[in-house]
Amino acid sequence: MKTFKGTLVGSALAVSACGAIAQAKERIAPPAVYKVAPGLGQYTDDLLFGEVWESPDLTPRDRSLVTVTTLISTGKFAQVGSHTRRALDNGVTPEEIGEMITQLAFYTGWPNAISSVFEVEKVFDERGIDGISDATELPAELAPDADAEADRRRSVDTSISPVLPRLSHYTNEALFSDLWLRPQLSPRDRSLVTIVSLVATGQAEQVRFHAQRGLDNGLSREEIAGAVTHIAFYAGWPKAVSSVSVLEDVFNIDDQ
Amino acid sequence: MKTFKGTLVGSALAVSACGAIAQAKERIAPPAVYKVAPGLGQYTDDLLFGEVWESPDLTPRDRSLVTVTTLISTGKFAQVGSHTRRALDNGVTPEEIGEMITQLAFYTGWPNAISSVFEVEKVFDERGIDGISDATELPAELAPDADAEADRRRSVDTSISPVLPRLSHYTNEALFSDLWLRPQLSPRDRSLVTIVSLVATGQAEQVRFHAQRGLDNGLSREEIAGAVTHIAFYAGWPKAVSSVSVLEDVFNIDDQ
Amino acid sequence: MKTFKGTLVGSALAVSACGAIAQAKERIAPPAVYKVAPGLGQYTDDLLFGEVWESPDLTPRDRSLVTVTTLISTGKFAQVGSHTRRALDNGVTPEEIGEMITQLAFYTGWPNAISSVFEVEKVFDERGIDGISDATELPAELAPDADAEADRRRSVDTSISPVLPRLSHYTNEALFSDLWLRPQLSPRDRSLVTIVSLVATGQAEQVRFHAQRGLDNGLSREEIAGAVTHIAFYAGWPKAVSSVSVLEDVFNIDDQ
Repeated sequence: MKTFKGTLVGSALAVSACGAIAQAKERIAPPAVYKVAPGLGQYTDDLLFGEVWESPDLTPRDRSLVTVTTLISTGKFAQVGSHTRRALDNGVTPEEIGEMITQLAFYTGWPNAISSVFEVEKVFDERGIDGISDATELPAELAPDADAEADRRRSVDTSISPVLPRLSHYTNEALFSDLWLRPQLSPRDRSLVTIVSLVATGQAEQVRFHAQRGLDNGLSREEIAGAVTHIAFYAGWPKAVSSVSVLEDVFNIDDQ
Repeated sequence: MKTFKGTLVGSALAVSACGAIAQAKERIAPPAVYKVAPGLGQYTDDLLFGEVWESPDLTPRDRSLVTVTTLISTGKFAQVGSHTRRALDNGVTPEEIGEMITQLAFYTGWPNAISSVFEVEKVFDERGIDGISDATELPAELAPDADAEADRRRSVDTSISPVLPRLSHYTNEALFSDLWLRPQLSPRDRSLVTIVSLVATGQAEQVRFHAQRGLDNGLSREEIAGAVTHIAFYAGWPKAVSSVSVLEDVFNIDDQ
Repeated sequence: MKTFKGTLVGSALAVSACGAIAQAKERIAPPAVYKVAPGLGQYTDDLLFGEVWESPDLTPRDRSLVTVTTLISTGKFAQVGSHTRRALDNGVTPEEIGEMITQLAFYTGWPNAISSVFEVEKVFDERGIDGISDATELPAELAPDADAEADRRRSVDTSISPVLPRLSHYTNEALFSDLWLRPQLSPRDRSLVTIVSLVATGQAEQVRFHAQRGLDNGLSREEIAGAVTHIAFYAGWPKAVSSVSVLEDVFNIDDQ
């Protein structure tokens, strides 16, 4: 990396690019990264953890929600443990982590959820976390708007039912009349997790409905944009770029 | 989960949601699932294994074909072993499992196939399965229609050859004049495996040709719809939903 | 496999299909493959390694670049080690392997890159490879054309900035003003790696820009076509087929 790019990634990079050993911050990238791919080591410590995780466009808690969701959704189980620890440190509760996994079983498939459970269990054991509750109800003020829900159901009944009637049934009854009403994750966070899973797995077209729903559930455009930018680092640039035109539509629609 | 949703997932859920320990059925979800993500535990036992696997829209043997195919296609090797056992129990033969893997090497890449081989080998060893035959020929009555095959070849020659001539060559010679004619898997099952792999990996557009071919090979619309609904649970809702518009076209075309 | 298909995969296949034990070449497929999926064993040794890897449309070095890139991009870490060895044998340098990983962190996500580092480290240790340099500059004659870069930046500023301003910033500053200028991988190889990662992960639409850039960076159409054909075997047929219409456009545009 050339030193004139210090403007982007900070002076720590500029120094290290000149060969100095001193680092402005503790290294997060393991030694193997510097040994095999030194450029990746620098980008990890100076750009990803030095810049991106520090950016004000998203809170650390939200970055953790986005990161853990991306890892589970794309099946990167080797990183789920360390980012679960970081998520707990950033204020995500154990109940919320369990519920993110439950949500992602439906949105990215059971195997991702089950394999993640085993990684998260190790972290819970490490930290003495036990006895996750599963008993309360979603407060009435967080329940979805009845008109919006009627629209959603009509849309599923029109588009999916004629072709896949049982999928339509499970969509209406298991997803939207049960999973989405569980109180372990706020509707705002559930929307964030769902949008992220769709972007991270390349389902840009289905982002349309969920980005709109996310705005209705209290996410700001800036938070959605910050989340998608964060995904670029954890699932690759093309996944983030693919969602641009859909988000442009949703953000404009909301303007009018 | 609220008890009024017992209509969906049966009384077992209603009971457990009230805190009772008794379960109507044996739990399939491992204890770690209930510990980390209790909601996922209930959905696994009451909805996925209690409802979905029991639904009459697809035979248990077909559900196993769909499940194993989805796992291999999406690289979820941690679950391949247990579902290979279930597949053998549901009447899929060892030869058919080996041949599904061979088919999926071409449709989802060699690494998925090779990694799955090692998981399946453990199950075969456990059960004393050995000496898979690879010698017979596809019965003449199962060979593809000559006109349909000529159409297919013409389409490949027109669309792929000018851009990727060697891919066109391998498509015609290795896939359709060799792989698809192997007798270890019936054309009906081979079509099912192929359709499922396409849906599970998000290749909805290419479902068009293979869904039509599947109908020609003896799959019913109900079986294709049942398979895609089952995929929702193993590869995530969006993958199933993405195939709706293509299936709508194929199912209508067949009507006329 | 029927013997009349010996025209495709050579006489070795014809012989083995008749049940003879003798093989024209050493087997590369592990014994487990022949045991579980005998057809896959034959296709591996006779078609994939007997034909595809030997085809003159791509050099062995390029096949290794394509294979390792596909494995990293699709998260098939179990195969990264053996193909890193093969890549080193085919003339890819350790610096180039490290830099491919760095490039793929951005194009397919950090977790793929980090997990690959650990696999590659084992191979580097095995071979006593150490002390990868990260200090030189890209020779001026390899720097991108200033007009093309201005066009690229304008396009990002117009399309991405209004929706995802920070992603646009990172795209301009971290990717195109830093990563792409690193000398550890030639622009030609960097384009090849990028195109392959896009095709292998199903991002066909974004192949358009990078295929054109690849031609500008010295890739031939035949090399791009050879790479995409090779991907069919390592990420599945549908991924390769999905890129046909985009490549057709790019190759034609270049004609005029």
